Amino acid sequence: MPVHAPVIVINYKVYPESVGPVAMELSRLCDEVARKAGASIVICPPVSDLFCIQQEVGIPVWGQAADAVEPGGRTGHVTLEMLSNAGAEGLLINHSERRLQIADIEWLLARARKFKLDTCVCTNNSAVSRACAALEPDFIAVEPPELIGGDISVTAADPDVVRGSVEEVRKVSPNVRVLCGAGVKDGKDVRKAIELGAKGVLLASGIVKARDKRAALMDLVSGLK
Amino acid sequence: MPVHAPVIVINYKVYPESVGPVAMELSRLCDEVARKAGASIVICPPVSDLFCIQQEVGIPVWGQAADAVEPGGRTGHVTLEMLSNAGAEGLLINHSERRLQIADIEWLLARARKFKLDTCVCTNNSAVSRACAALEPDFIAVEPPELIGGDISVTAADPDVVRGSVEEVRKVSPNVRVLCGAGVKDGKDVRKAIELGAKGVLLASGIVKARDKRAALMDLVSGLK
Amino acid sequence: MPVHAPVIVINYKVYPESVGPVAMELSRLCDEVARKAGASIVICPPVSDLFCIQQEVGIPVWGQAADAVEPGGRTGHVTLEMLSNAGAEGLLINHSERRLQIADIEWLLARARKFKLDTCVCTNNSAVSRACAALEPDFIAVEPPELIGGDISVTAADPDVVRGSVEEVRKVSPNVRVLCGAGVKDGKDVRKAIELGAKGVLLASGIVKARDKRAALMDLVSGLK
Amino acid sequence: MPVHAPVIVINYKVYPESVGPVAMELSRLCDEVARKAGASIVICPPVSDLFCIQQEVGIPVWGQAADAVEPGGRTGHVTLEMLSNAGAEGLLINHSERRLQIADIEWLLARARKFKLDTCVCTNNSAVSRACAALEPDFIAVEPPELIGGDISVTAADPDVVRGSVEEVRKVSPNVRVLCGAGVKDGKDVRKAIELGAKGVLLASGIVKARDKRAALMDLVSGLK
Repeated sequence: MPVHAPVIVINYKVYPESVGPVAMELSRLCDEVARKAGASIVICPPVSDLFCIQQEVGIPVWGQAADAVEPGGRTGHVTLEMLSNAGAEGLLINHSERRLQIADIEWLLARARKFKLDTCVCTNNSAVSRACAALEPDFIAVEPPELIGGDISVTAADPDVVRGSVEEVRKVSPNVRVLCGAGVKDGKDVRKAIELGAKGVLLASGIVKARDKRAALMDLVSGLK
Repeated sequence: MPVHAPVIVINYKVYPESVGPVAMELSRLCDEVARKAGASIVICPPVSDLFCIQQEVGIPVWGQAADAVEPGGRTGHVTLEMLSNAGAEGLLINHSERRLQIADIEWLLARARKFKLDTCVCTNNSAVSRACAALEPDFIAVEPPELIGGDISVTAADPDVVRGSVEEVRKVSPNVRVLCGAGVKDGKDVRKAIELGAKGVLLASGIVKARDKRAALMDLVSGLK
Repeated sequence: MPVHAPVIVINYKVYPESVGPVAMELSRLCDEVARKAGASIVICPPVSDLFCIQQEVGIPVWGQAADAVEPGGRTGHVTLEMLSNAGAEGLLINHSERRLQIADIEWLLARARKFKLDTCVCTNNSAVSRACAALEPDFIAVEPPELIGGDISVTAADPDVVRGSVEEVRKVSPNVRVLCGAGVKDGKDVRKAIELGAKGVLLASGIVKARDKRAALMDLVSGLK
Repeated sequence: MPVHAPVIVINYKVYPESVGPVAMELSRLCDEVARKAGASIVICPPVSDLFCIQQEVGIPVWGQAADAVEPGGRTGHVTLEMLSNAGAEGLLINHSERRLQIADIEWLLARARKFKLDTCVCTNNSAVSRACAALEPDFIAVEPPELIGGDISVTAADPDVVRGSVEEVRKVSPNVRVLCGAGVKDGKDVRKAIELGAKGVLLASGIVKARDKRAALMDLVSGLK
């Protein structure tokens, strides 16, 4: 089922605060906030927690990454089959911390369609957004690497990369929806993202490392309205 | 707890026959055979299935691989923390299909000790066995890559690489136990491995792709006596 | 200076027949044939031979690859500065045997423009051609990896990937010229490539491993007319 | 011919100060200082400059790195054949900025012997020094990555890693000579290295980025006595 936009995509990464029992707790919280606020939230837990989390929540659960390989004689890889089997409904592709070759991005997108997995390709600037949009993923998420994990939201630090990506993507593949990320933390950042033409945000530490995760989530979703 | 040797280590890889519900079924079978035959069996399922499987079986469950990174702002990685949290008691390192840099092997070994995870470093020949033994993992598993997934057991095709690894490892680090793998399929191969000085075998397709997995396992463990 | 099309781009790779003194000999031959036949030929020798060869020939000499890194504290890398300093006028990017991350392709293209280096991005199918064309290199060279080094020309084995790339690239970036490669060996293949809409060919073993290199080259350029 | 120890190995890296004509100038200077001071100096210029430099100097010229591949259908790789053809007498392997898989280090060492190329494997700590010494390169150069390019010499910042490497290497392979690097800049650092049991130093920025390169070199070699 297609993800409702505008959307907040939470990449758990592999922080101590996002692996194991605490990942389950965070997931239940996201699920509750999404329901109560009528907000569209997607969560991307570590692959080792994906199956159990997906059993417990109603919101879409995505993989953080997949390897561009067929099932078979491979060791330690994460295939689309593994994600799908574990209950994932989509995945991030080419995150800044897991960059892929262009041929592999295309391969994963073509195969993810067969599994009916939603796809979000991460990019670092408008030109790369344009190139990846030509491959027609469901989402492009532009995140300048130098702002990832930082304190200033991309919407304040570099609004042009958001506007530029929205514009470039529209020219090449008008159906692809653009998200933005890096430094996103609160409802104000989400509101600004939407004003710039984005259909939502991708974030990690802003929620995962927040002292009061419920308050941080509530603030975040307030920006969707 | 240290793994009892001689041991049979089964690397599930990511075959269609080793992901999801069929991985659980195979794991229960391995557990049952280990119990009934009093044999030492270790299983290495895909990371997405690890937690659920480890809940259901009594034999040791290992990860197939880990990335040499600390927990934190990383996307799509598999950390030692994730494996440990999911209930793994050990892991394969540097499998032929997931080769690592030497500095990363050393990092993983040093850190795995802190988590009390058993370690098995895979190698491709006697010289590399010797080098990796110098890092003092619990096991070295020598597997000539050209024989992996094939029909002829390393014990028949290249007994010298097993003998040579046993000898080289003994010189450098006498506590490290040597396994051998590639093409191993039945009790005869296991018996031959032990005659050559190995403390067990590492195998994948010989079990995972066997028509009658129970029969294949029973045959395999018969070689341990 | 822009490369004249239709063009024949010869990737020397690192065959015994294309390194050291024999590389110089082959280069002089290419230079002579280009001059005599009035044909546009570009050669891509190994980086260790590039400087000397470029001193001796009049045709454009390109690098086979570059790393997407700034000059500085890097060991064993090949920077655009090194290629430019050695006299290269262009380079291949993302060859099937040296695939790059999409962000690195974009980085290299942006920087190559500053050095006035011509660029040819290699791709594996029409979708990837379309994506890479969005980054506006000078050339796209589509080469299905399974045909590389083989006996059947892409123009015969898979004409649709050539036609498809020409079409997709035209839609996205009409200034980008499309080459095709894999299995190309003679004038007939070149002629067919041009009929399919390509502006030339990229080849390696067809020339490098030819018994009679002069005859092979003469045949090849005959297809340009 | 075997390198005379104690030795100073200068890794040019790919600084603006070490590519092209300035690399040639630096090489002539090293040659002159080595001759005048009767010092053993080895230089590692960028691969694109290697051939020309080696023609002009009498001291050994090494490659900065090689790929663990046979000659053949590979694009943009640097093979041992290319280095040997260009006149290199040795090479660095597994530099911190170009880490390799352990199987590839072993492959390169075995093949380098056939080409009579001297080898120096770089390591990051005593345990990795021990592991790599088991593969019997000519030299091990231990360089803690966090000190590379910095202002404090490894001999002052972490003398134990030098002592420890010397000791561990002696136990495993007494013929392997240990160098140390990272932050090394002057004769005092060289002298200290030798006191700690090293047979010389590996350095880069200390010479490449020195204002007065001749003075820096003269100071450096003074430490060999």
